[in-house]
Amino acid sequence: MSNIDTVLARIDSNLDASLSRLSDLLKIKSISTDPAFKADCRAAAEWLAAELNEIGIETRVRDTSGHPMVVGHKKSGKPGPHVLFYGHYDVQPVDPIALWNSDPFDPQIVTKADGTKMLVARGASDDKGQLMTFVEAARAFIQETGDLPIDVTILFEGEEESGSPSLHPFLEANKDELSCDLALVCDTGMWDANTPAISTMLRGMVGDEIIVRAASRDLHSGSYGGSAQNPNHIVASIIAGLHDENGRVTLPGFYDGVPEIPADIMENWNNLGFDVEEFLGEIGLKYPRGEKDRTPLEHLWARPTAEVNGMWGGYQGAGSKTVIPAEAHAKFTFRLVGDQDHEKVQESFRAYVRSKIPADCTVEFIAKEGSPATRLDTTIPAVAKGKKALKDEWGVDAALVGMGGSIPIVGDFKRMLGMDSLLIGFALEDDQIHSPNEKYNIKSFHKGIRSWARVLDELSRG
Amino acid sequence: MSNIDTVLARIDSNLDASLSRLSDLLKIKSISTDPAFKADCRAAAEWLAAELNEIGIETRVRDTSGHPMVVGHKKSGKPGPHVLFYGHYDVQPVDPIALWNSDPFDPQIVTKADGTKMLVARGASDDKGQLMTFVEAARAFIQETGDLPIDVTILFEGEEESGSPSLHPFLEANKDELSCDLALVCDTGMWDANTPAISTMLRGMVGDEIIVRAASRDLHSGSYGGSAQNPNHIVASIIAGLHDENGRVTLPGFYDGVPEIPADIMENWNNLGFDVEEFLGEIGLKYPRGEKDRTPLEHLWARPTAEVNGMWGGYQGAGSKTVIPAEAHAKFTFRLVGDQDHEKVQESFRAYVRSKIPADCTVEFIAKEGSPATRLDTTIPAVAKGKKALKDEWGVDAALVGMGGSIPIVGDFKRMLGMDSLLIGFALEDDQIHSPNEKYNIKSFHKGIRSWARVLDELSRG
Repeated sequence: MSNIDTVLARIDSNLDASLSRLSDLLKIKSISTDPAFKADCRAAAEWLAAELNEIGIETRVRDTSGHPMVVGHKKSGKPGPHVLFYGHYDVQPVDPIALWNSDPFDPQIVTKADGTKMLVARGASDDKGQLMTFVEAARAFIQETGDLPIDVTILFEGEEESGSPSLHPFLEANKDELSCDLALVCDTGMWDANTPAISTMLRGMVGDEIIVRAASRDLHSGSYGGSAQNPNHIVASIIAGLHDENGRVTLPGFYDGVPEIPADIMENWNNLGFDVEEFLGEIGLKYPRGEKDRTPLEHLWARPTAEVNGMWGGYQGAGSKTVIPAEAHAKFTFRLVGDQDHEKVQESFRAYVRSKIPADCTVEFIAKEGSPATRLDTTIPAVAKGKKALKDEWGVDAALVGMGGSIPIVGDFKRMLGMDSLLIGFALEDDQIHSPNEKYNIKSFHKGIRSWARVLDELSRG
Repeated sequence: MSNIDTVLARIDSNLDASLSRLSDLLKIKSISTDPAFKADCRAAAEWLAAELNEIGIETRVRDTSGHPMVVGHKKSGKPGPHVLFYGHYDVQPVDPIALWNSDPFDPQIVTKADGTKMLVARGASDDKGQLMTFVEAARAFIQETGDLPIDVTILFEGEEESGSPSLHPFLEANKDELSCDLALVCDTGMWDANTPAISTMLRGMVGDEIIVRAASRDLHSGSYGGSAQNPNHIVASIIAGLHDENGRVTLPGFYDGVPEIPADIMENWNNLGFDVEEFLGEIGLKYPRGEKDRTPLEHLWARPTAEVNGMWGGYQGAGSKTVIPAEAHAKFTFRLVGDQDHEKVQESFRAYVRSKIPADCTVEFIAKEGSPATRLDTTIPAVAKGKKALKDEWGVDAALVGMGGSIPIVGDFKRMLGMDSLLIGFALEDDQIHSPNEKYNIKSFHKGIRSWARVLDELSRG
């Protein structure tokens, strides 16, 4: 038996214990965006550091002005590339809590009618389940061979779901320590349940929250209706005016830097057999929204978007309340592609919003960190090695795909630390990440661990 | 001393005790729209019945399918008109609670910098303070003279702030008992702090709540953004399309039955010296919204409106959540004037909303009771008597005004019981009804009690 075969056998026999460890991590309520869960975020970081140290990866919890980082090293001076593995231990909020079938922080193994087994919990897929595939691969390697096949640095952050405010300063302050030859990033998905994927295009993002204020207090809509400004209407008109009748975003300059997809990549995508009706059917919808003259995969991977993630103003309780509220709110995110400049997009958005505010009303902006889109050069050797490892595990060629989501750190690694990122993950479209009843298939977890072991092994070969 | 003089003197010497009784009523959390306060609503009804019985008005709490009615009678066979006095003991919800300077249900007497004393509590003005002006006037009359000068029936309801669902069946079932010669309704305001008013036009109202549903679950805006429908955008476009650039409501047929105000009444209004800058300045605004070719008083009294009292969808917590929600909501009210048909307005609204729903999304409607606008014939004798009484108390002529709010019961009294309503109240524009820190000036309360005593006295004269 070669090293890799004994490592894979060890992964198989470890599986129950690996699942039990993942469950322990999932019980920690590490919701980064809500200050009420600050201590839980630290607890998750400390749990991970303890695990890594136990395996033999020297790890410390490192303070930031926000939630802490977890940084570990195992360097034996191996000849292959030195890799940095990145993941995040924080999770999204759990609301609407009423739609969960079980406590989001009490992981359950559920068997679907078709026999698929899955672990249900907030963070099961995004990103605790995914990062643990790497941790468990490393554990098996060290248990079987006494070491990892290449030098590894680990970086887990706790603010990915809330804009990673501490990441830039941390990377800047620890440039030498964290600069490696290649980053491995696990926060992505499979093409489908049987086909692994390497993500080579990621959308960027910029966000903004607005508070529109009108009267100095809530008003009775009988006494003031028809005369006083209603901030609900102002916010609604801002949202409604963001898109034209063809689904294009109306902000001036918004499409500056948005490239057309080259013909060969478009052909590649067309050959993936993407079925938009099935994709939307799974979530109860039927017709793609978005720019009318674009294909569904362009909508998802290659076109920028403007979405309102939240809006509110006035009375939301049972029954009615005849009020004109003093203020109304909305949270916006823009997904960016190609060379769109996130700062210019934000400037254009703010100018647009200001143009819609009546003279006696005001608007306040609450900014979110922005990041540009990123693209991976698919000719680098790590891509070929990743493809080989994934084919060995899954038996089919990995798809080279785009991604609708944003992983800003990929751009940061490139710009700040000079590293390319190999994006491999085992999430599935139906994992319900950011939604109630988030899950991770046991198969994703098991074969994900095996895949990382194979990737490490491949990268160690000349 | 004539009867009325001794009654007025008694009112003056009772004032502290009257205020203390009002405070007791204000402590009861009778929020009718929220089922959590059902028992409190009954407690308020029982408190009022006990007070009225103690005065000598024979009163019972009467069950309905919702909150109970309070009905009392004092009939001595007096020659003057038999009047029915109407008020409501329920109050609006208190949110946003953070903006209250004191507990909304712990009444406080506050003295402003200019020396104005006021009672601060939810319902202080709308409508507990106002209805107690009549109760205390009746008390003083009976204490001084052993009786009321005319026959009186009292009707207090507990659902005025939530659409009065039990009112029609109750009026229908108790037609004979409740039919009088004239209704006195106290749920209105002064023209200004020194000028009393009789309200002769009231806007009607119809409301609707919508729930727009898109995907079967909340979605990640990275994975689905640009492809799946976002109900926030759909609701926003419904709201934004309700008005055109001139402030007119766009619903087909909406303005059917909206009359032009006769030239003599318009002249009357123009002579009231209404200062729109002062009116809006008091609430931190400056420019009247509404139809561009109409005067400010037309906006408030004589033109129909469409207002969104609440809207919400997606994430509202701290920080950000990159979600496309499964559903979004909005609550609408339309104020109606003249002969607008509230059922036709609702039909037109619903057809408009349905036209804005994408083919793979749905909308649910939650209706509210509607009521048409009402107008009082100002040539009836009760108007002249009311004006005389108010001038005696306040020293200036009462203004005959319109009203932006809706008091559906005025139309019901006319249609179902054949009664005209004399609308007299002592609320002020700055009472913050339906808002945090609602208050009622002690002067409104004191001179309000005195005014009702004078009105009863005038009505008893041939």
